[in-house]
Amino acid sequence: MSAPQSRERSIILNENGWSVRVLDQRGLPWRIEWVELTTVAAAARAISEMWVRGAPLIGATAAYGLCLALRADASDAALERGMALLLGTRPTAVNLRWALERVRASAQPHQDDARVAAAYRCAALICDEDVNSCRAIGDHGLELIRAVAAQGRTVNVLTHCNAGALATVDYGTALAPIYRAQELGIAVHVWVDETRPRNQGALLTAYELNRARIPHTVITDNAGGLLMQRGEVDLCLVGADRVSRNGDVCNKIGTYLKALAAHDNGVPFYVALPLSTYDGSLASGSEIPIEERDPAEVILISGELPGGEPGTLRLTRSAAANPAFDITPARLVTGYVTDRGILRHASEWAALTMRALQRNTR
Amino acid sequence: MSAPQSRERSIILNENGWSVRVLDQRGLPWRIEWVELTTVAAAARAISEMWVRGAPLIGATAAYGLCLALRADASDAALERGMALLLGTRPTAVNLRWALERVRASAQPHQDDARVAAAYRCAALICDEDVNSCRAIGDHGLELIRAVAAQGRTVNVLTHCNAGALATVDYGTALAPIYRAQELGIAVHVWVDETRPRNQGALLTAYELNRARIPHTVITDNAGGLLMQRGEVDLCLVGADRVSRNGDVCNKIGTYLKALAAHDNGVPFYVALPLSTYDGSLASGSEIPIEERDPAEVILISGELPGGEPGTLRLTRSAAANPAFDITPARLVTGYVTDRGILRHASEWAALTMRALQRNTR
Repeated sequence: MSAPQSRERSIILNENGWSVRVLDQRGLPWRIEWVELTTVAAAARAISEMWVRGAPLIGATAAYGLCLALRADASDAALERGMALLLGTRPTAVNLRWALERVRASAQPHQDDARVAAAYRCAALICDEDVNSCRAIGDHGLELIRAVAAQGRTVNVLTHCNAGALATVDYGTALAPIYRAQELGIAVHVWVDETRPRNQGALLTAYELNRARIPHTVITDNAGGLLMQRGEVDLCLVGADRVSRNGDVCNKIGTYLKALAAHDNGVPFYVALPLSTYDGSLASGSEIPIEERDPAEVILISGELPGGEPGTLRLTRSAAANPAFDITPARLVTGYVTDRGILRHASEWAALTMRALQRNTR
Repeated sequence: MSAPQSRERSIILNENGWSVRVLDQRGLPWRIEWVELTTVAAAARAISEMWVRGAPLIGATAAYGLCLALRADASDAALERGMALLLGTRPTAVNLRWALERVRASAQPHQDDARVAAAYRCAALICDEDVNSCRAIGDHGLELIRAVAAQGRTVNVLTHCNAGALATVDYGTALAPIYRAQELGIAVHVWVDETRPRNQGALLTAYELNRARIPHTVITDNAGGLLMQRGEVDLCLVGADRVSRNGDVCNKIGTYLKALAAHDNGVPFYVALPLSTYDGSLASGSEIPIEERDPAEVILISGELPGGEPGTLRLTRSAAANPAFDITPARLVTGYVTDRGILRHASEWAALTMRALQRNTR
């Protein structure tokens, strides 16, 4: 059942069989620090304070968080309290609810130790499935890269935020096809949007690509439009926090602006996501709640001081607003790179989810 | 001839009658430091190192820079050397060449002291005209704000970079209508794009608006699209570094992305500029040279350390690219707010520049 573990996962069940460790991503790339989560409260904090982030990894962390809640108290009441606490951590990514409901459904029929064991089995399965799903996204997305490479030149991919191994259990969504291309010796260069305010591009995506020795260049979020005007982008590949029934994509703030530029310049714009990020319960993107985060994330910025110490600077004395996501309308999306293949139209989601549902209830 | 000087200009001829002082804008808002320019080399450095920036202020500083060159050596050779040095400082803003050619044309017919005096008269005229021109832009642009205010609510304007008093000799281009509205008691709120990499929005525009007590909120460059999707922007108002004959607008990197979002959401997108920013010699925006600046501007960021000291942080360990401008196609521009009125179409530029030419040669 378990996926091959040649790489290091972003969330790992400890040898004790019950606590999990995650990378505190707030310190990357300057400081690589793993933290052990031993309580549901710690898991909730890791999600809300963004030690972990990225829709699939949020789901996996929440799944183990609910296990930790049940390990402390396997009652129905504790199960519901744990669900509520974890559901309240981040409002936008749908994987959070999806993962929690899966663990609850697995655990509920059982009592006591059997309930805890069932929850842990489900959380492990969610993680393994995520790895397999990301690898499948990589294989399907690879075809897009291969098609450009067939013209005999380096393929320039633009990505926004971090939808890589650090946003998932491993491999990533948007970065998975890039890792696959690298494995096959296809020349790829990645334009990395820095992704203000939290700079997940400059910090996390650049860190991942550095580690994998994939050529890349960090750019400001403002620069992608010009690069597309100049023909220096072959393909945009981004992740998603939630996709609604009509194919609208909720993703990190600024994604919509890149989709507009891609559309205006005839650059293909693909969204990579596992099936768990699709939310068929919402008709359109306008129904997706957009998280408003602390304005301090805009006003203050973290990085490395000249001496190598971590530091924080104030960037303005004025007030700031900090909406964390925007909605890219389906009409701007060339296709969806999923673990089940590339979909060209939102209507294909319906058949896909129906098949998945049938398989899960078999 | 001189414009009313109730406010402090961004470039001032000293009481000695020959050296000029400018605000070193690199320290704003943390440090307010005026520097005296006494040589053409200092003026060139002030422009290339961005102590001063903004197309109109670059033009004014270059004009005085050429005066300083002639004061040291009024020969034809020195005039040409000064021109070449100053022209090489920044490639994108057309006002630089425009101002230098004007000063040269004024000075060339004369010799020695008379040549120097003619140059200084021309530079002073360029500054006074800029102030009057910005005030006129403010009056014309005010109508756009008034039209929204007539609906009985606060007018939300989004601006990118700094096209305020600090980018000109006074008042600004894009901010001039906002200052005018404030004077008339019209409720305005400004969304200020931080404008990475140099954050002229978060630093300079926010500083100006703070000083004028105009309500404003700093946002990341990524956020404007969502705000427009939500109907929270009534009007986009930006400046320009150069406008080509067909109406394409070269402005700070990222302007194009906001124009796309405005177009996609039916938000009016206006470009404010004096006639001197129009370059009828170029057929379209694709002919405008785009300055590539030092990647260090992306990799390092400046701000205020917790103790109040200025500081610099490293934001990534990867390589970066730093194109400084992009081109907004004329089809995305609702209109041009000029000192001669609001133009709705690029073709109106021709008649306008013809009239200006006739007036100048009369």
